[in-house]
Formats: sequence, structure tokens, C-alpha cells
Amino acid sequence: MEKKSIEVCFTPVLFEHILTSEDYIVVVTDIFRATTSIVAAFYNGVKSVIPVAGHDQAREYKEKGFLVAAEQDGVVLDFADFGNSAFNFMTEEVKGKTIAYSTTNGTKAIHMAAKLGTVAIGAFSNLTVLSQWLISQQKNVVILCAGWKGKFNLEDSFYAGALVEKLNANDGFEVICDSAYAALDMWNVGKNNPIEYLDKALHRHRLKKLNLDDVIPYSLTLDNAPVVPVLIGDEIVNVL
Amino acid sequence: MEKKSIEVCFTPVLFEHILTSEDYIVVVTDIFRATTSIVAAFYNGVKSVIPVAGHDQAREYKEKGFLVAAEQDGVVLDFADFGNSAFNFMTEEVKGKTIAYSTTNGTKAIHMAAKLGTVAIGAFSNLTVLSQWLISQQKNVVILCAGWKGKFNLEDSFYAGALVEKLNANDGFEVICDSAYAALDMWNVGKNNPIEYLDKALHRHRLKKLNLDDVIPYSLTLDNAPVVPVLIGDEIVNVL
Repeated sequence: MEKKSIEVCFTPVLFEHILTSEDYIVVVTDIFRATTSIVAAFYNGVKSVIPVAGHDQAREYKEKGFLVAAEQDGVVLDFADFGNSAFNFMTEEVKGKTIAYSTTNGTKAIHMAAKLGTVAIGAFSNLTVLSQWLISQQKNVVILCAGWKGKFNLEDSFYAGALVEKLNANDGFEVICDSAYAALDMWNVGKNNPIEYLDKALHRHRLKKLNLDDVIPYSLTLDNAPVVPVLIGDEIVNVL
Repeated sequence: MEKKSIEVCFTPVLFEHILTSEDYIVVVTDIFRATTSIVAAFYNGVKSVIPVAGHDQAREYKEKGFLVAAEQDGVVLDFADFGNSAFNFMTEEVKGKTIAYSTTNGTKAIHMAAKLGTVAIGAFSNLTVLSQWLISQQKNVVILCAGWKGKFNLEDSFYAGALVEKLNANDGFEVICDSAYAALDMWNVGKNNPIEYLDKALHRHRLKKLNLDDVIPYSLTLDNAPVVPVLIGDEIVNVL
């Protein structure tokens, strides 16, 4: 049987340059914000999440009565119910609800990915169950790092390395791009102490400035929210 | 004194997203082809190198009587005098000459870089003298990896890590982007055995297919051609 491919795309800007197949599952990751939050939401009993492209659309969802999570550059927008920290998605208030969700980088990456295949939501918190689900699907995998405004970032690429390691350990998969090897190097360098490794990451410095860095240890904890959020139509739901 | 910044751009596609200053020296690198060849050329006594954007322009230079090095996807073009392997630039024939030079990725990256600052040519073969020259210039540095058709590649990013290590050891510089940290990780993982480290790099597999991989050990040897090629006007010359 032909092996399924593993590719890593370091930023959405590179996405159109990486595509080599039409039979993809695209795993989107935005470790310190969107994807860790979405995984936390489903583990906490949220019914579905609607990824929203921009502020205007987020405001429309608010006017329709949805709960809205929306921030820009780490700051909660004035009309939103809450911001994008994973902790905001772990309250009693959100259980059983549908949340409309807009972020600086993550939801844009989700919409980009949706044009090209099935979209799954990846975070350290669902690493193992997501890798098992991906192996069960037997499709080519691209890991799309949301990055920061088009730029490479360390935390998303570091996560990509962790997922590459899981998939590459399965005989049904093979790495077909240099980015995946580089991500694996980062993961191997830092996996024994992710918090120390990512201390140098610029995004972390941005979160510190905004006093949002309390979410970092949670975001780097493995397998504490075993759900598999997948975009179906316009909504993300847990398929596990 | 304010420190000068060190940034790494993993592919030309990301170049416009990385710019934060107008006071740059851009070090272009294309390890298995253009920049190792250009460094070899100057060490071998070539007078100047004209980076040429496309085949039509390369053909015009040939008609004007220049020596022309030109290939596409690793194959020498029919009108050219030779291809892009560093070994082609180390003959008696090229001493004292000006060479017009067109490649798949490298010369495009040089032209892109030229729009934004001083362009220097980086390879493992001139690593130490180039780092010393950069330190003497006291300007912000961006290392622009030529990549492969817009995609990240391991060998150029690995070189970027080597140059980051040299600059970062100087008090006058500081890393300001995550890409530079990631490149440094790659360099640290592979620097004790670059050939083994890059065995997995896809570009190397492409060169093998074309029977051009004899240039790989040369391309990964440190400091065997101590020259500093810099683009001045339309021509690259050795400024050391």
C-alpha cells in the first residue's frame, strides 16, 4: 500500500506552495490561542464552534444571539463575550453552546485550509487522540501552522514536530518535505522541557506584555483534552 | 549602543513579511547551487558575477560575449557555457572574467534582496569571513534562504543557523525572530555531521537523480574560500 504523506506548512503564506495532492487532511494549529482554546471548549462540552473570518462577521453573530469569542492582537474586542484564552472556553456558561470565534491568525488559517480538504484542529492537549484519528483516516496530512501575521513562529512549528513524530512512527506514513524534518528537530531539542524551550518564542513575549501568559503551561500540556474537533460545513464539531 | 538585529527568512515568499527595518544587509544563501558557486568563483579569481533573472536575459549576455552559467531544475541550458555546480567556477577558463549567472532559485533571491538593502553572498565556504565583515558593518542582518521554488529547504536554513550562531556570539547583535532560533536549533542538531544531517534533505535527492551530488561535500565544508561577495550596482564583486 502506498504510504500517506506528511507535510508541514510553517505559515499560511506558504500554504499554496506546499500543495502536492488533493487528498488531504489539514491539521491547523495555533498553540497559544485558537486551536488550544477550541480543543478545550469541546472537552468542556461545547456543542460546536463557528470559525469567523473577521470582526464584522463576529459582530453579526453577536447580534444573532451567539456567544462570541473575538480578539485582535491579543486584546478582547468590545462587543465580544470573551477573548481567546483557553480558560475562557472552560466555564459552565459555554457548555452545550455554539460559539462564534474570531482570532488574529487561527480562524484565518482554518478558512484557508477548508478550501483544500478536511480540516482538523490540533493542539498539544489532543496530540495523541488526533494522531490516532489521523492514522485511522488513511489520508495525506498537512500540518498548517497559523503563525503570526504571516510569519513563522516557534510554538506552532514545535507542535508540528510533535505530531510529525507521532505519525512518522506509523508505517503507513512518510515525511515528504524538509519543513517536517526541521519541525521534528525543534521538537526533539525542546520536548523534554517545552516551557523552557519556548521561553525564547516571541509570541510568548507578546502574551506577557498583555498579561495573558498564564495560559502557556496549559497550552503546552500533552493529552489533557482528548477530543478531535473537525470542521464540517461551517461548524467545528468533536468527531471522537 | 542599540544592538543590531538578526533575522532569518526561510523562503523568498516570506521576505515581504519579515521586514522591520530599512537599514539591512541581506545575506542570500543557496547552499547547493548559486551562493556556494559564487563564493568559489571569487576565491578562484573571477572578476565579477552578474546575477541574471531569467533565461532570455542569460541568452542576451551570451550573445554579447559573456561567459554564461545557467541551469533550470539542475539541468544546464543549451546555450550556456556551463551549469551551476561550484566546480564549474573553479577552472582556469573563468579567472579574471565576468560571468552572467542564472539559476532556478538563487539569482531570483538576490534580485529580491537587492530591492531592500545591501546584498552579500553567504555559503559555508565563507562563513567566518562573512560573519566578521557583517560585524564590521554594524547593520541589521537578514539571512534570506533561496529555498526551492518558494518552499522551505533544510540546507539553506541549516546554513542560516550557522551564521546566526556566529553573529549572536557578538555583543552587538541580537536575534529578533523565531525563525532564527529554529535555524539555530537545526544547526546545533546537525553541525557535528552536516552531510549525515542533510542526507534527508529533499534537494539532495534531486541532485542525486541528476548525478550532481558530487558537489555536496564541498558545499558543506567550512571556510575553504575566504571571500565576501557583495552586489554593487548590477555586479557582484569581492569586497574583502
